[in-house]
Order: sequence, then C-alpha cells, then structure tokens
Amino acid sequence: MNNSLTMQVVGEFIGTIILVLLGDGVCAGVNLNKSKAKGSGWIVISFGWGFAVTFGVFCVSWLCPGHFNPAVSLGMALANKLPWSSVLPYMLAQTAGGFIGGILVWLTYFPHWEETTDKEGILGSFATTPAIRNYTWNFFTEMIATFVLVFGLLGLTNTKLAAGLNPLLAGFLITAICLSLGGPTGIAINPARDLGPRLAHQFMPIANKGGSDWAYSWVPVFGPLLGGVIAALLFNVIV
Amino acid sequence: MNNSLTMQVVGEFIGTIILVLLGDGVCAGVNLNKSKAKGSGWIVISFGWGFAVTFGVFCVSWLCPGHFNPAVSLGMALANKLPWSSVLPYMLAQTAGGFIGGILVWLTYFPHWEETTDKEGILGSFATTPAIRNYTWNFFTEMIATFVLVFGLLGLTNTKLAAGLNPLLAGFLITAICLSLGGPTGIAINPARDLGPRLAHQFMPIANKGGSDWAYSWVPVFGPLLGGVIAALLFNVIV
Amino acid sequence: MNNSLTMQVVGEFIGTIILVLLGDGVCAGVNLNKSKAKGSGWIVISFGWGFAVTFGVFCVSWLCPGHFNPAVSLGMALANKLPWSSVLPYMLAQTAGGFIGGILVWLTYFPHWEETTDKEGILGSFATTPAIRNYTWNFFTEMIATFVLVFGLLGLTNTKLAAGLNPLLAGFLITAICLSLGGPTGIAINPARDLGPRLAHQFMPIANKGGSDWAYSWVPVFGPLLGGVIAALLFNVIV
Amino acid sequence: MNNSLTMQVVGEFIGTIILVLLGDGVCAGVNLNKSKAKGSGWIVISFGWGFAVTFGVFCVSWLCPGHFNPAVSLGMALANKLPWSSVLPYMLAQTAGGFIGGILVWLTYFPHWEETTDKEGILGSFATTPAIRNYTWNFFTEMIATFVLVFGLLGLTNTKLAAGLNPLLAGFLITAICLSLGGPTGIAINPARDLGPRLAHQFMPIANKGGSDWAYSWVPVFGPLLGGVIAALLFNVIV
Repeated sequence: MNNSLTMQVVGEFIGTIILVLLGDGVCAGVNLNKSKAKGSGWIVISFGWGFAVTFGVFCVSWLCPGHFNPAVSLGMALANKLPWSSVLPYMLAQTAGGFIGGILVWLTYFPHWEETTDKEGILGSFATTPAIRNYTWNFFTEMIATFVLVFGLLGLTNTKLAAGLNPLLAGFLITAICLSLGGPTGIAINPARDLGPRLAHQFMPIANKGGSDWAYSWVPVFGPLLGGVIAALLFNVIV
Repeated sequence: MNNSLTMQVVGEFIGTIILVLLGDGVCAGVNLNKSKAKGSGWIVISFGWGFAVTFGVFCVSWLCPGHFNPAVSLGMALANKLPWSSVLPYMLAQTAGGFIGGILVWLTYFPHWEETTDKEGILGSFATTPAIRNYTWNFFTEMIATFVLVFGLLGLTNTKLAAGLNPLLAGFLITAICLSLGGPTGIAINPARDLGPRLAHQFMPIANKGGSDWAYSWVPVFGPLLGGVIAALLFNVIV
Repeated sequence: MNNSLTMQVVGEFIGTIILVLLGDGVCAGVNLNKSKAKGSGWIVISFGWGFAVTFGVFCVSWLCPGHFNPAVSLGMALANKLPWSSVLPYMLAQTAGGFIGGILVWLTYFPHWEETTDKEGILGSFATTPAIRNYTWNFFTEMIATFVLVFGLLGLTNTKLAAGLNPLLAGFLITAICLSLGGPTGIAINPARDLGPRLAHQFMPIANKGGSDWAYSWVPVFGPLLGGVIAALLFNVIV
Repeated sequence: MNNSLTMQVVGEFIGTIILVLLGDGVCAGVNLNKSKAKGSGWIVISFGWGFAVTFGVFCVSWLCPGHFNPAVSLGMALANKLPWSSVLPYMLAQTAGGFIGGILVWLTYFPHWEETTDKEGILGSFATTPAIRNYTWNFFTEMIATFVLVFGLLGLTNTKLAAGLNPLLAGFLITAICLSLGGPTGIAINPARDLGPRLAHQFMPIANKGGSDWAYSWVPVFGPLLGGVIAALLFNVIV
C-alpha cells in the first residue's frame, strides 16, 4: 500500500460500511416480515455475507487492503503483513464503519421493523446471537471459525496464485465458513461486524426492538481475536 | 471504445434485451403457475438477475461498455468514463431494449399467463413492486442500493484487477445487492429495467394482467438516478 | 484445434457422456424417491446442469472445442468457427454420448427407480417434458433460449476476455438460461442432451418407466437447431 | 513441488483437517437440531463441500498439491503426476487429517449433539450413509462419481488453462459431483474423508451417537480407489 495511513483508514471505514450494509442487509431481508426475501434461508445468508466482503473490498481496494475486521488486521500484523502502527487506527475505523453500516440497514428496511414482532430476528439483523447459549463453546466456535478465516487469507496472500480475484475468493471463504461453521453462533468471525451494528441497535430508535444482549457481546469480539492470533502464529511457525 | 456511437447504441439495445429477457424471465419462472421454477425463491431470483447482467454484457462487450442502465451511464459520465454526448442515446436504447425484453418474456412464458390469476405476480414478472408501499422509504432503498451498484462498478473499473472477468463480477454485484437489499422493493436499481418492461406490461395483451401501477413507476426511475449521481460524486471526491 | 477429427470426435463423445451423466444425474437426484437430493429444487437443477457443462468441457478441452450440442456446432459452423465437414461427425458423437450418459444415470441411481412411481419424474431424469404442452410455444421457448446460448457463446469467443475460464463461464451461461428460461419446458437447448438419453429411456429396462413421449421429442431437437441458426446469422450480420 | 516430502505430508495433513472441518461441518449444520442451518438442504451441502475443498487447498497449496484424497493421490501416481514413494505417506496423512477434522466438527458443534436424537443424522455429520443400502450399487455409484472427479482433475491439470484458479475449479467439481451424483450415497468419493471422521465418530464420546456402521465402511474406501484407478488408466490411454 502506497496510500497514506489516512487514506487507508478512510478505505477501511467505507468498506466496512458497505460490508455491514450488505451483510446485515441479507439478515434483515431473511428475518423481517413482508420482506421479499423473508425465510429464504441459509444459502441466501451465506452468499449474501460472502459477496458483502467481495464487493466491500472491490469498492475500496485501491485505497486499503480491505480487512474490515480487527481479527484479520491483528493476524496480518503478527504475520508481518501490516505495520503494527496501523492496527489500532484500522480497528477503530472498522468498528465505526460497522456502526454506520448498521444505521443504513435500519434505514434501508425502515418500514419493515414495525411489521416485525420477533425481537431476536430484529437483533439478528444487526448482531449475532447463539443458537444454544453456552459461552464456552460459543467462544470456541468463533475462535476456530476465525482461525480458518485468517489461516485461509494468509494462504491466499502467500500463494498469490490468483491475485486479481482475491476479493472474490475472500468472499467465497466467508461463504464457506458461514455454510459450514455458522450453525452454532450465526458466526461473527469479526469483532467490528458484531460490535459496530450492535451499538447501532442499542442507540437507534428501531421499532419493536428488544435488548441488545450485551451479556453475549464479548464472545464475538474475543473469540475471533484469539482465533486470528493462533492462525497467524501457526502460519509463522510453518513458514 | 473504438466503436462508433451507433454500434455502441446497438450493443446497449441488444444487451438490455437479453438482460431483461433473462432477468424478468427468472421472475416469471418463479411467479407463474405451472412453471417448473415456481416458488423456487430468492436465491433463484438473485442469481438469475446477476447472471442476466453477466451474459448480457458478454453478449455485446465487443460493441459497447455494457451498462444497460441509465443510472450507470449517468454515473459513468459524471466520473468522466463516458462522453456526455453518449448519455441520452444510451438511455433511450436501454429503455427500448427493456421494452423489447419484456415482450420476449411474455412470449417465452406465453401459455403460463392464462394459468396464473395472481395479478401482482404477473406485474412482478415485468416491473418491480414494493413489499410495503411507502414512497419515501422505497425511494431511499432504491437510492442506496444503486449507490452501492455504481460505487462498486467504479471501484471495479478503477482497480482493473480482474479485467477479463469484470462481467462476471458485475453480475455477482447485482446478485449481492438483490440478496441483501432486495427485500423492500424487489430492487430495480435501473430505470430502463423497470420502465421498459412496465411499458410492455401496459401495451401487450397479456392474459390475466391487472394495472401497471404507474403511481409507483417514478420511484425505480428517480431513486436509482439519484443514487448513481451520489456514488459518482463521492468517488470523484475521494479520487 | 490441431487434433485430428477422430480425436475431436472422441472428445465430443466422452464430454457429452459426462455432460449427461452429471446433468441428468441432478434431475434424477431431485426427482427420485429416497434420493438425498429429493425435492431440492430449481437452484440445484440449474447449478447442476451448469457445472455439468463446465466439467464436461474441462475433461476434454485438450481434445476438442467441447460443444456437446448439435445446435452449438451448427451455429459455430455458420459463424465460420468450425469446418462444415466436422458438423455431422460431431452431431453423431454428441448424440451417442447422450445415449451412453443416459445409461450411466440409470446405473448410478439403480436402486432408486423401483422406489419411484412417478413416471414423469422418471422420464424427466432422461429427457425434457413441457410444463404446459403446447408445441408451438414450447418450440418458441426452446428456440429463444438456444438463441441466447449460441449468441452468448459467440460473444464469449469473440471477446476472448477470459479465455482460460471460458468453460466456467459457459457453464454459468447454462445455469443462467435454466434459471430464467427453464420454467416452461425444463429446457433442453441441446438436441443431443434430449434425444440421446430419451433413446436410453426407450431401450433400457428401467423399473417403473412409462412411455418416452416421442410425440414431443421433435421440439427439443428442432427448436434448438433453429435458435442456433438465427443466433449465428445475427452475429454474422453485426460483425 | 520443491518442498520436502515431510512438508508435503504436513500440508496434506493440515489441508485434510480443514477439508473435513468445513465439509462435515456443513453436514452437522444441516443435520443437527437448533443449528441455524438446520434443514437448509442439498444446495448448502453441495456448495459447503465444494468450498471445503477450495479453501483446504488454498490454505496449503504452497506446501503440497492438495489432494486430501487417497483416490486422487493413487490416480495421480498412475498418471505419472506424483512419485509412487509419496502415495502411502500422503494416504496416511490424509486419513489422520480426516480423523482430527472429525474431532473438530464434534467440538465446533458441541452443544448441539445432545439436542439431537437422530442417530443417522449424527453419523452423517461424520461419515457417509447410503440412501438405499445395496452394497453393489452403492459401490458402483462411488466408483463412477470418483471416476468423474479424477478424470476431471486430470483434465484440469492437463489443460493448464486457468492454473491460479484451479483450487476454485476443483471445489466446483466437488460441488458438481455432489449435486448430480450425491443422491444415492451422500457421496464420499474420498476414502480419507469417510474413514477418518468415521474413526472419530467411533472413538469420541459424542452425545446421542449410535453405531459407526462399519459394515458399510468399505464401500466409500474401495469404490473411490477403483474409480480413481480407472480414470487414470483411461486418461493414460487417450494421452
């Protein structure tokens, strides 16, 4: 990246807005009453999130590496692919982008919230919720799924086999993880994707909303961060 | 583009015919009674429209840039990627192509219209209809979704990472927007895709058809145009 | 192609076997009782047929152009992309490959036929059947869908944008046509894909089978051939 | 491959862990009660397994060829694309990777096993089970499906049309085979993918598990091996 840190941070901010607008948008589309995508299921969710990453990255790949994810930025720093001084600014921009993205999802689906009484479906259009609440195992699921994400991204950058299509492949990797490992926690694998729009859920006057489930909110933050760290360390050992 | 404006306009016309034939075709396939694709859902709609763009473009990419969309042509002109003198001819060719495409959908599914009594499903095989009628928010949804489309296409053209596969990526971008943001309005993000076949619905003697809902018809025209303008202006500011 | 005509014909024969094994295989998987894919719907059918083309071509693309389809070979000859002397040998090899492919589908799903009493589902695992029987309009649907196929393939070969991935793009083109235009006839767009396995249905002792519906069999032969001819002629005019 | 055999074996081991974690993970997600992907069907299974291969390979393609499958390694040796001395170490590493992958699936979905009473769904989250038990025809199905896999992979390596995206294409080939030929046996086409996690099912204290169905276990081992051998021999004859 030859861009200044400021431009990189602007890129991470805009890209994460688009990521969360498209990603939480597909959750809203599947969850909310009267949506034309209502009930269209896991295949829609999984490709929706995958393409959210792909086109978030294509939108700003001329500005920044397109992590949109503190766990990825931390892993890349550990693998010497990002300067340590960039990590905190990236993380803040990503989380702020997630917050704005959440607001845009609220506005895009505005008339649908008051037609929906399922409070968990409304929260699930912003942040993740566990299928079976068990903090230990929910944490493990988030950790191992993010391990696959960061190890896979490091593999992609290391092989440089298909550089121009890496944003597409990164999106399909998200689709893969969502399809295969998303069952237990709805899969955050990204602290900014979960915390940012959870804050939007907390502060915006969304019709019919319930609580923002802060008791669970640490799981999709620290599980992914630990998974990313382990992936980077293992990658370093093998290389 | 080294082709004459006439050849470009022919390309945009033919390409938009194919876009609408395949795109409204998948709506007809899902909506109409006795169709083998009846009720196959949002994943079919979303990939159907995405591939409609991909192969519309591949069919004529040797003739024209393959916008098929007045909001895209306007945005490209604002971003200095299309001469202003081409904008109006493009828009007319695209809308005319949408009209012919709508007629071909009517003919391709000819025996199915009289088996279908759902007038909204018949109209929805030509033009978009809102899930919850609210012109302000429907307009906002069309605007923000088209913002993502045009900003994403400008990002793709700016990075030139994967030039030969851009028609595939542009199609997946449509799939992404449809999956994630299509719930509230069925998503036009393209004035020609909506107005052209709505005219076909109005003028062709389609069995069992109802009204063409002209009261709503300005939303999928002006919402996308404004979204495309905002995307191009923001892109110019950042570049 | 530098290969001898014999090797090309061997390639078209083997490739069409794989095309029909995978393509009619997905129909069998969705139609037959106790199949794990039973009832999995139009998205499975459409991607199944698309990938059947992709990997049929990748299997033999070092031997032949991978048409597997008399309508495509005829169109390519009209567009001066295949010697006229190859057309008849190709067509015969393709149809023979379709026959063998149909036999392999029968064997692959062998225990499932006697668990299935739906005679149309059994025939539909070999040959196409119309959703609403109307020879005129069924013919029109096959014609226009094959027009899109051959015009799209000619567009792909003319642009040479993405040569190495053309088999993938050709497969997605099939998926697109199936998703969007497959509702009325189940879409053959290929005389060999329909006639070859219909012969297998006629001659093999398949449990619970009914008639092979020869009254309809000319539609998916001549509709596609005419559509391919029109596409090639239009392409020649524009070029 | 310039890597030492040890590094190659490490790569095959890690890659097969990821393959089975993602692949059996999607089976668990679809099969287990309270999973968010519960009942999401064959399209989810097929893309889940396909992307499991794609990203297993991308994770370790800088270490090894990424077979993860004894039938593929055997076929590649027969086609002179792998030294015979590597075959047994590869096979052992692949099977061990399958075992560890199965354990990780158990842990990732840990709270879900005790919510699930369907013993066949639990076993099916580790190893394949036939839709209709008939060892002769189940063996034939596994054999012919693996023939398509190995013949397709040899075609891909022979054409070298799209080298950098071969892991994506290999994944889509798995998706294709699963969509089209997976109905009768749930499709192993890989002895390590079946035997490794079946051992995990046998030895781990999984809640609510039943028997590991060792009576069937030879079918998904020897059917694929024979199919791979036939594909390699036919390929050698044609080349």
